[in-house]
Amino acid sequence: MPSRVPSPGPTPATDRAAAPLAAPADPRGAPGALLAPVPLRAAELTGGPLAEVRRRNREVTLETIYRRCEGCGAIDNLRRAGGLLAGDPVADFQGQYYADSDVHKWLEAACWQLAEDPDDARLRERIDTVVTVLEAAQDEDGYLNSYFVNERAARRWTNIRDEHEMYCGGHLVQAAVAHFRATGERRLLAVAIRFAAHVWSVFGPGRRPGADGHPEYETALVELYRATGDEAYLEQALWFVEQHGAEPRAIGGRDYHLDHAPLAEQREVVGHAVRALYLYTGATDVVTEVPERTGPLGEAVTALWRDFADRKRYVTGGAGSRHEGEAFGARWELGDERAYAESCASVAHFQWAWRMFLRTGAGEFRDAMEEVLHNGLLSGIGLDGEEFFYVNPLADNGGHRRSPWFGTACCPPNLARLVASLPSYAFATDADTLWTLLLAEGRVRAEVAGGTLELAVSTAYPWEGAVSIEVVNAPEGACGIALPAPGWASAPAGWAVDGAEVEGEAADGFTVLRRVWRAGEVLTGTYPLPVRPLAAHPWVRAARGRIALTRGPLVFCLEQADHEGFDVRDVAVRSDGAWEVEPRPELLGGTVVLRGTGLARPAPAPDAPLYRPADEPEPAAERVALTAVPYRLWANREAGPMQVWLPVASADGA
Amino acid sequence: MPSRVPSPGPTPATDRAAAPLAAPADPRGAPGALLAPVPLRAAELTGGPLAEVRRRNREVTLETIYRRCEGCGAIDNLRRAGGLLAGDPVADFQGQYYADSDVHKWLEAACWQLAEDPDDARLRERIDTVVTVLEAAQDEDGYLNSYFVNERAARRWTNIRDEHEMYCGGHLVQAAVAHFRATGERRLLAVAIRFAAHVWSVFGPGRRPGADGHPEYETALVELYRATGDEAYLEQALWFVEQHGAEPRAIGGRDYHLDHAPLAEQREVVGHAVRALYLYTGATDVVTEVPERTGPLGEAVTALWRDFADRKRYVTGGAGSRHEGEAFGARWELGDERAYAESCASVAHFQWAWRMFLRTGAGEFRDAMEEVLHNGLLSGIGLDGEEFFYVNPLADNGGHRRSPWFGTACCPPNLARLVASLPSYAFATDADTLWTLLLAEGRVRAEVAGGTLELAVSTAYPWEGAVSIEVVNAPEGACGIALPAPGWASAPAGWAVDGAEVEGEAADGFTVLRRVWRAGEVLTGTYPLPVRPLAAHPWVRAARGRIALTRGPLVFCLEQADHEGFDVRDVAVRSDGAWEVEPRPELLGGTVVLRGTGLARPAPAPDAPLYRPADEPEPAAERVALTAVPYRLWANREAGPMQVWLPVASADGA
Repeated sequence: MPSRVPSPGPTPATDRAAAPLAAPADPRGAPGALLAPVPLRAAELTGGPLAEVRRRNREVTLETIYRRCEGCGAIDNLRRAGGLLAGDPVADFQGQYYADSDVHKWLEAACWQLAEDPDDARLRERIDTVVTVLEAAQDEDGYLNSYFVNERAARRWTNIRDEHEMYCGGHLVQAAVAHFRATGERRLLAVAIRFAAHVWSVFGPGRRPGADGHPEYETALVELYRATGDEAYLEQALWFVEQHGAEPRAIGGRDYHLDHAPLAEQREVVGHAVRALYLYTGATDVVTEVPERTGPLGEAVTALWRDFADRKRYVTGGAGSRHEGEAFGARWELGDERAYAESCASVAHFQWAWRMFLRTGAGEFRDAMEEVLHNGLLSGIGLDGEEFFYVNPLADNGGHRRSPWFGTACCPPNLARLVASLPSYAFATDADTLWTLLLAEGRVRAEVAGGTLELAVSTAYPWEGAVSIEVVNAPEGACGIALPAPGWASAPAGWAVDGAEVEGEAADGFTVLRRVWRAGEVLTGTYPLPVRPLAAHPWVRAARGRIALTRGPLVFCLEQADHEGFDVRDVAVRSDGAWEVEPRPELLGGTVVLRGTGLARPAPAPDAPLYRPADEPEPAAERVALTAVPYRLWANREAGPMQVWLPVASADGA
Repeated sequence: MPSRVPSPGPTPATDRAAAPLAAPADPRGAPGALLAPVPLRAAELTGGPLAEVRRRNREVTLETIYRRCEGCGAIDNLRRAGGLLAGDPVADFQGQYYADSDVHKWLEAACWQLAEDPDDARLRERIDTVVTVLEAAQDEDGYLNSYFVNERAARRWTNIRDEHEMYCGGHLVQAAVAHFRATGERRLLAVAIRFAAHVWSVFGPGRRPGADGHPEYETALVELYRATGDEAYLEQALWFVEQHGAEPRAIGGRDYHLDHAPLAEQREVVGHAVRALYLYTGATDVVTEVPERTGPLGEAVTALWRDFADRKRYVTGGAGSRHEGEAFGARWELGDERAYAESCASVAHFQWAWRMFLRTGAGEFRDAMEEVLHNGLLSGIGLDGEEFFYVNPLADNGGHRRSPWFGTACCPPNLARLVASLPSYAFATDADTLWTLLLAEGRVRAEVAGGTLELAVSTAYPWEGAVSIEVVNAPEGACGIALPAPGWASAPAGWAVDGAEVEGEAADGFTVLRRVWRAGEVLTGTYPLPVRPLAAHPWVRAARGRIALTRGPLVFCLEQADHEGFDVRDVAVRSDGAWEVEPRPELLGGTVVLRGTGLARPAPAPDAPLYRPADEPEPAAERVALTAVPYRLWANREAGPMQVWLPVASADGA
């Protein structure tokens, strides 16, 4: 498969600040970037599950999270710190010392939503309210964190390993960049700039050393550079990335904080999963901007991705197998019932994969984005849009349910900001080609090959494989439309223009159709979506002798709610069993299910012994009908056992 | 199987203090006890693995732990608190705030050892030294904890949920009881009495409420009652047990501390495994002493045992499946590679099972003692006697090794005190029968049926099943010799006296041979010890489709050190495979191994994908020779993968 020829970005780096791009990252023109995202509003997702998730995010989740940020006192903390609310900011502080970050993430989410709905007056008012609160809460010296104020101000920056000041600051900067990119206003950007100047007055070469104990600030600094054009922030980002594992070890040298070795020398994905993935994301940003100065770091990021993808990633895209330390486990340690797979780690996985894709154009990264999104990321949000998973296990006995909020509430607003900005992740461009990353009913308009290419996509993907793309507008000259050739597909889809087969160019994980397009032409193709049982590496103990049902990008599970008369924990399936795909528009907001058969043993007696001779005859298994639902949709009905990895029945039926 | 007729204990409760019994618990004469232990020195273990463990404990481990208690500063903490060493007890304090407990547990272990070797002058001197230190470290008001002194004295009893003052005190009291029972001296007992008086001046009805956040003090108080005859301690023990879950919730009401409900109402084994098992142990002691006042608590203890044994106990006897919270997981949540199964939890399991046995005489509890001892308890001590496991997983990739010491060093001295007192756990008596709990080469002398019954046991158990018991002395009248009829045996052993078959009475888990015994008679029998593969309850996800090899009380594992040319993680076995028992006197200090065959796939390539289509052909498996070693002995050679639960090969050999 030939590699795609690199194309320069459409806009030089120095111009980015002048022409902001409404997307979470803007690598246009970076020497290490092959592709650039398409801004919000230039892309729409109008149908299918992603559109539905976005509708709920807009109508329910953003409002819900705002109210919970008010209800739990996180916004009032900032109001008191800024003198906008009576009370003692220290004595009356509510929640965790990093509660500000929930407000920042809500604000980022709201800004991306506003970019799509600029006429939403209520949302704009809410945003203005919070921006005003943040302006007030900022100290004269630029510091901003509502916890470390008054008598606690002396504690500022005294424990950067544990106290999340840079983490909160990173989310502040990201919110500010989102606000600027969504509205063109510089009010909050000015707050971020003052904050960054303050940080850099404390830390830096010749000043204090120090890696951020909870990474996030690094990737935020790169975006601040991209939004302002001020290269100082890029230098700062590189410095902070390189502080991990540098001498002196300002944060203690533990792998939990990714401080056990210089990041450029790290080759195994370890430590706190969210911290690790955020740091890799920031490192990828830096490598994208200054590849010539960050060769070993670029090799590290590539090797770390390899380790993650080949040894430490759940089939759902989840990351982090241990509750203790919220950590990656050992290689192939991917237990299912106690999987941690934090929703925030899925968001970080998605964001890292996207940056790796924009850097390389390799289809593996697009596949990863799609897989984590449709499985272990969106599983974090209930169908009501109001309840959330922090932890996303791959098997459960019925006790794990979504919650309205958490003492540490990082996940809900993190999911919301990802969902709000989803269209900007769905497409990308290089000089002459429009790349589709996320297939969904919708529209996209992008500048390529010196003109505007506008497409209207019709599809019921991922439920069905047929895709029909109408060319609404096209440049005069030739340009490319690149469509995914996913790794999960046994063969790429074939494509036709107005019914006539066209030959595409095979790129890495894509099919590129390059020609002079005419408005009104319709490009059609179909992704075959057979049910595709997967087996895991034999050293994944939780999956040994088991299969996971997948179809296209979706991972399915057996949930008790679909079964009566037996317990899904007593089921085994044939590895070569036939599974029928059944659309169920009335179920779980509309889905397809997989229907097949399995063998169910009678449920063990309540006093069944824990261990028994292996040669004792087992109760005969009965053939039963099984219904598998997408993993993303589980735990939206009555509680009961669930499992992704299904035991394979032995040939004699046991 | 008929129940054994209860027999009254040999000694009235009030006499116990006058005639101390050298054993960790002395329920003689308690209304709820059917049996009493045999004191140290009345029982000897002279051959076989238990004797070998005890030899190492005596020659190496006790000395090693003493030196480490000196090396880590735990004894010096107490010296400084008592003014015997210059320095600031607060500023110079080393280790955790519960470091005293390591010293107390070493002291208890040393006292039990001294009971066996009263002429060991060096050991006696060490003991005297530490007793003197403890006397000095005790405050005038009876308080004793070297952490909460001087300016930290104001913190005493301010956080009984987390700060382990009663836990440390419980181990102090246990050491004092051991010192008294081993030496007859009352110096340390006086310290314990003063400490208990102090505690009861702070807590109690009409004073402060409060359950112990880390139970241990309850069982210690019962033993203090038994050692002194002062019923006040029994009342205190009952009060502290009943504080768990009582209003007001002085320690927060979390299940982690067993405070979520009154213990008498608890039916599921939850929370921190060691804390839970210590509390159940203390509750069992109380129920044994005052069954008429503790009916519901007795029912709770019985139900909790049932839940533990049937749903939450590892096949190795380990307890606690979660690293996070060192906790029991959900029912049937018994993951292998991340099993916590703390060595201290195995000690607690053993101690609880023993008390349940003395209370009921039911063989299930004896079986549990034997199984945890020979597997997940003694696995905590390396063959060098100098390195220890804190965590005892049932599968490993080669990274888990024993350590010389730990920041929290609870396990090494806990293992040492158990091993030092092992002979007193090995036999028990009722009025007319001597019960053997732990089969091993050795001798025992006990008063039964108005006379002395003395036996010399010859056996290579658990390596071989043959047992020969010579009657050295016997009472004039009839008395019983009760021998285990273990639950793991398909049929009880048959017994013969001087070669002539004798019919035993089947009790619950025992065969009782009751007759007029004559000195010189030899009782022989043989436990059949076939290899017995076990399967687990189907909801134990880590064991589904797998078997564990057992033989007699021993659980075996595959360790990489015995295999070349393939990785033990790539092995599957037939559930009906033949396993040959091979004595290996030169291996691992002398053991038997199981030799059989399995199917090994080639090790996956280093870049093997994490997930692949389930219908992809797998590399052909080769028939390989396998050697399984006792789980207790793993990790004493070069590091490498290990697993207890072995995948069962499907009928087609995959």
